[in-house]
Amino acid sequence: MTGVADHTETDIRERILLTAERLFREIGYTKTTVADIAKHLRMSPANVYRFFDSKKAIHEGVARRLMGEVEAAALAITQKQGLPAADKLRELLAAVHRMNSERYVDDSKMHEMVAVAMVESWDVCIAHMQCIIGSFATVIAEGVEKGEFHVADVPTAAMCTCSSLVSFFHPQLIAEKKDMPGPTLEQQIEFAISSLSYRPAR
Amino acid sequence: MTGVADHTETDIRERILLTAERLFREIGYTKTTVADIAKHLRMSPANVYRFFDSKKAIHEGVARRLMGEVEAAALAITQKQGLPAADKLRELLAAVHRMNSERYVDDSKMHEMVAVAMVESWDVCIAHMQCIIGSFATVIAEGVEKGEFHVADVPTAAMCTCSSLVSFFHPQLIAEKKDMPGPTLEQQIEFAISSLSYRPAR
Repeated sequence: MTGVADHTETDIRERILLTAERLFREIGYTKTTVADIAKHLRMSPANVYRFFDSKKAIHEGVARRLMGEVEAAALAITQKQGLPAADKLRELLAAVHRMNSERYVDDSKMHEMVAVAMVESWDVCIAHMQCIIGSFATVIAEGVEKGEFHVADVPTAAMCTCSSLVSFFHPQLIAEKKDMPGPTLEQQIEFAISSLSYRPAR
Repeated sequence: MTGVADHTETDIRERILLTAERLFREIGYTKTTVADIAKHLRMSPANVYRFFDSKKAIHEGVARRLMGEVEAAALAITQKQGLPAADKLRELLAAVHRMNSERYVDDSKMHEMVAVAMVESWDVCIAHMQCIIGSFATVIAEGVEKGEFHVADVPTAAMCTCSSLVSFFHPQLIAEKKDMPGPTLEQQIEFAISSLSYRPAR
């Protein structure tokens, strides 16, 4: 049963995370204090601590929200109907690249937040990666069923697909790539699709 | 004409680089000073500066030497005779991973040196990557000629092959991978070989 009080609690949690995200963007993760977040919400720090027991917990909440948006978009693409699996996978891989770039790279202050997440909340990052790799596996399995892809081990193929595009997914590598010679996103996606489409001789 | 004096100059340069590398490994790049290097060689700092005009130049020399060893090993593999191109590429990709791991990851102090190189001497890193990608292109072109691989654009295929294995080549990602779910080196290599082996329908 979800009562009014529960709703309000959820709202407050959400407002804390939104405010925290805004401050992380504006003044950076390191410089933002729980007191700053409380002040912007016109509440006491003690009240913020009722919902999140540390700045790290707030940070994880913000990271989960941002990653959750990418996960929701990935899920929506896996559920599209009437597309060849290869086209769906192209769309999915491009979307993950675009959303990660927008979220974590274009904005240098967010970059700081990501760097902290990758050190302090590695398990949150791992869970996110597993979710995204799971969405690749869904589409690859569909492609195998339709006879478009020819891989014997779908979970491994999904991990390899993810790993083959890590330059386009990993926030730090996306940032480095800007000064580096290398394939385009489209070329790297086709490289992965070719691999999945290869039918080994018997 | 290479005279005795030139030989000696080359020897001294080499001794400076070897000593610097040893100190970078033992006490770390940041903590090593040009005075430390000079002291270990029983020469004056001024003499070291005759050969390298800055600590950055010494650092680049050390990085070039380490990278040069990987480049030489890669070249030797490309020149092997009597192997299918796919096997040669397997050997080459595994060798680059192994040598990069040994050089830059297993040793945490060297890790620091790499991090500095990637910021201060990005052009040296780029030149190294282009050399390694060139060795991949040589073997891929051979595979196309032999009918093992079916790619229209060899330089792009070589870049994509490199990028698809970046988790196994990039010093920082090799280090991160230790705590991460993901494909094995062998699985990722087979993923790339499958892509190169795929023959598109006409």
